[in-house]
Amino acid sequence: MYTIGLDFGTLSARAVLVDVRDGREVATATFDYPHGVMDSALPSGRALPPNWALQHPQDYLDALDHCVPTLLRESGVAPSEVIGLGVDFTASSPLPAKSDGTPLCFLPEFANEPHAYVKLWKHHASQPQADLISAVAHQRGERWIRRYGGKCSAEWFFSKLLQILQEAPAIYRAMDTFVEAADWLTWQLTGVLARNTCTAGYKMLVQDGQYPSREFFAALHPDFADVIATKVQGAFVPLGTMLGRLTAPMAERLGLLQGTPVAAAIIDAHATAAAVRATQPGVMTMIMGTSTCHIISSARLVEIEGVAGVVYSGIVDGLYGYEAGQAGVGDLFAWFVDHAVPPEYHAAAARRGLSLHSYLEEEAARQRVGEHGLLALDWWNGNRSTLMDAELSGLLIGATLATRAPDIYRALIEATAFGTRAIIEAFEAGGIAVESLVAAGGLPEKNALLRQIYADVTGRAFALGASKHDSALGSAIYAAVAAGAYPNLTAAAERMGKRKDEIVRPTPENQRVYDQLYQEYKTLYDTFGRGANAVMKRLKRLRNQARGVHSS
Amino acid sequence: MYTIGLDFGTLSARAVLVDVRDGREVATATFDYPHGVMDSALPSGRALPPNWALQHPQDYLDALDHCVPTLLRESGVAPSEVIGLGVDFTASSPLPAKSDGTPLCFLPEFANEPHAYVKLWKHHASQPQADLISAVAHQRGERWIRRYGGKCSAEWFFSKLLQILQEAPAIYRAMDTFVEAADWLTWQLTGVLARNTCTAGYKMLVQDGQYPSREFFAALHPDFADVIATKVQGAFVPLGTMLGRLTAPMAERLGLLQGTPVAAAIIDAHATAAAVRATQPGVMTMIMGTSTCHIISSARLVEIEGVAGVVYSGIVDGLYGYEAGQAGVGDLFAWFVDHAVPPEYHAAAARRGLSLHSYLEEEAARQRVGEHGLLALDWWNGNRSTLMDAELSGLLIGATLATRAPDIYRALIEATAFGTRAIIEAFEAGGIAVESLVAAGGLPEKNALLRQIYADVTGRAFALGASKHDSALGSAIYAAVAAGAYPNLTAAAERMGKRKDEIVRPTPENQRVYDQLYQEYKTLYDTFGRGANAVMKRLKRLRNQARGVHSS
Repeated sequence: MYTIGLDFGTLSARAVLVDVRDGREVATATFDYPHGVMDSALPSGRALPPNWALQHPQDYLDALDHCVPTLLRESGVAPSEVIGLGVDFTASSPLPAKSDGTPLCFLPEFANEPHAYVKLWKHHASQPQADLISAVAHQRGERWIRRYGGKCSAEWFFSKLLQILQEAPAIYRAMDTFVEAADWLTWQLTGVLARNTCTAGYKMLVQDGQYPSREFFAALHPDFADVIATKVQGAFVPLGTMLGRLTAPMAERLGLLQGTPVAAAIIDAHATAAAVRATQPGVMTMIMGTSTCHIISSARLVEIEGVAGVVYSGIVDGLYGYEAGQAGVGDLFAWFVDHAVPPEYHAAAARRGLSLHSYLEEEAARQRVGEHGLLALDWWNGNRSTLMDAELSGLLIGATLATRAPDIYRALIEATAFGTRAIIEAFEAGGIAVESLVAAGGLPEKNALLRQIYADVTGRAFALGASKHDSALGSAIYAAVAAGAYPNLTAAAERMGKRKDEIVRPTPENQRVYDQLYQEYKTLYDTFGRGANAVMKRLKRLRNQARGVHSS
Repeated sequence: MYTIGLDFGTLSARAVLVDVRDGREVATATFDYPHGVMDSALPSGRALPPNWALQHPQDYLDALDHCVPTLLRESGVAPSEVIGLGVDFTASSPLPAKSDGTPLCFLPEFANEPHAYVKLWKHHASQPQADLISAVAHQRGERWIRRYGGKCSAEWFFSKLLQILQEAPAIYRAMDTFVEAADWLTWQLTGVLARNTCTAGYKMLVQDGQYPSREFFAALHPDFADVIATKVQGAFVPLGTMLGRLTAPMAERLGLLQGTPVAAAIIDAHATAAAVRATQPGVMTMIMGTSTCHIISSARLVEIEGVAGVVYSGIVDGLYGYEAGQAGVGDLFAWFVDHAVPPEYHAAAARRGLSLHSYLEEEAARQRVGEHGLLALDWWNGNRSTLMDAELSGLLIGATLATRAPDIYRALIEATAFGTRAIIEAFEAGGIAVESLVAAGGLPEKNALLRQIYADVTGRAFALGASKHDSALGSAIYAAVAAGAYPNLTAAAERMGKRKDEIVRPTPENQRVYDQLYQEYKTLYDTFGRGANAVMKRLKRLRNQARGVHSS
């Protein structure tokens, strides 16, 4: 018996067919989104303002059409042997749709309208709306805002929906529903529009089974008062339960049996904890890709600065699931490699048959800690935790005429590790112990220097998941629970989840120097992140004025 | 009648044969130093510690041998028509020598000894010695330190000589004299060891015709008490006077007449003011190359923060000559172009047949002010004026995933313009008006964007010298005065100096935005430059510890 896990990421989708007994990955398939991330223009060529990031929902359907048949064909597994489907997705990545599930951007009259597309998680142009939501929540003394570290993110569902209402009221009127891509996909598969409790809890402000009140939404904008009743329909479906069954047309399209159970969707990061067997308190799962998501469960409910959300049973039944994150990690390294490395390093990497990342890693690994003399704030894509401020930006200090590309590359890796340490310290200050780290994703797997730096900077043992498709494996585990193959998530994860044998431990000698550098990082973090010098925001305002776009 | 001006720069020497009547440049010659700047290793391969920068004096002799005969050959001018020679040099660039003028590094027993070579102006490893000189001067209440903005630079003569005494006492003992390369060269030409008053005033702590006292030097180090008597012999020779006459062997070697007058040498930057006819108060000469030197004359004697020196008749007879500077300008742009620009820009520049500098300038010039969202502190090579601190380092803030090479290139140009504005504001705060700017050097001539940015940032008209060899032309003007062709410098400069017709004026619209950006720059400048956050120094200390070198 098998389940299928489908993982919809930022640039591609991955699928895995998993043996329910032992987690063996029998077949995998991947699909790169033809439209990728649309951050400069629509398919029509219409330019997008700064801080926009869209996706095209057709890419998700194309991914389904490609991946599921591929899994069956390559494995030789019969459709009858597939007992369940699980889906995970980036979040919050919502889209406006008609009542039959058609995305607004599929309609010719809206194809040239930016607000008709999926607003990808890293769409940050809704910062003003997020600021308003936070301010009104505090003004009204809403208790739920404390579950989110006191701040609503530009990345979240209602920030994006309010942006549509304010900037494109016609689109707001034309949509019958606004739906997370995760829930849109299970809707497409089953015909059932429902909201998974994971995305609802972490991204849609749902706490204790409730959205914020009608009065709250009315205080944001008079036309927003009935937003839940008119635009956010659908019941909540808990994690690890069956949301619905595969429809006949979709079963035929994918080559599966009609009626195959489809699990409630889940956020991609959160699916990973099960895949790396990190469901117990004290173990932080770090999902490291373009960005990093930090996940940890605890029996305690506390308020942590900059935690992106705490949701009861948000990951594991009966525990509070905490989520924090860093907005630019792999993205930051890719930016550097693509846009700031001179030809000689490209040539040297090619001569060695290495990727430029690997070559720079090798060069950077020769250095002693502190030798490059650099320090960076890793905010090229803003700061998610602990400051929740998309208007922050990157900083590099210590450059000299002798600074070279491997120096900066190493400083950027270190900066992201310092950012993780700041998050860990916020958790521990709030009373949630973080005893060890388990990382998932290609980034930590490929980069041994990064693993050691993270262990040295955080002073914690650093383990690795063993699947190349952790999120997809996690979705397959949730699907196994939803299909009734296991009594609960922990039992399923114990059998189907995987870790590598290697555990990287901190080096005391390196820790001593990193402790000093971290203090410097923290001082800059507080100076530029907490308003003592708000130059980053003022630079963004001047940038926006120069480009003739609205200042936020 | 003609004079020859010889300009010894950081990477090459330039010579020009000038018609004394009208400043017409009849012939020019250049010579790239075979050893260039030695900042990582000696010719033997022996590695140098960080912050070292040496030169090889053989390069200067080879430059003479190449340039002077080339001028005569190419111009067809007869040796008898050459009425004088002038020399200018980077400063402070001193070397240890024997009593016959032989540099210590020419002797086999010292060839592998770093301290036996010329310490180039940008040798910064003598920062601890500079700090000591400043501290002792203040402790003893020495009045002369106030003529240098209250700080002795790591780049200056006695910082470098004290470093030799402390780190290589055998070299100190072995030298018969320590001499500026400028004065060493006129010594080679004439057989006369004398110290020109320009270098003496700006780099050797000479004020009102006196070195600091024996007691002062004794307070630095007991063995330094008699440094003037034992290591710094030679009379002072004023600018625009004849230091000596060409010796027979040197005349034969160069193809000139024995007895040809040789003028007192001068610092390269200071020679420029005459070449661009900027000898009147209110006009600041900016010599822009690898670094920028700011020169202005005034009838007033005042104390200006971070002024590298004020010397009576240091440039123009009867006026106080002020010198300030920025330690990394062209150097900084070259660093960026060489070490931080990805291949696509190299390829695009090559397709267009442009230098990478020109291509980036063209791309950057399309932007509106503030559009890149970046701000930099231009301290890749430390800060000379107004902070006089070689331990400061570069900072870039505002980077996002959308930041591209032309953005950073423009931000770096702007940062150097902000640095110039900080210097201008220090002058004006001290009561020295700066009404307009005249720039010299290839950098402002080639880069129209830079000219406009400097005008916009400083709010001042920006003119350009018209010679391609301003310093060398200036030396030829001083030589004409020394040879008696003119009664004084101003008269000679009026006839022989040159400016271009173009004057770049500030654009009010750009000024408004730059005024805001400058306030941000100044806040960062004060935060990181004046000790509120001394992270730059601490990063350098950690770097030095990691490399196992002495911390400063």
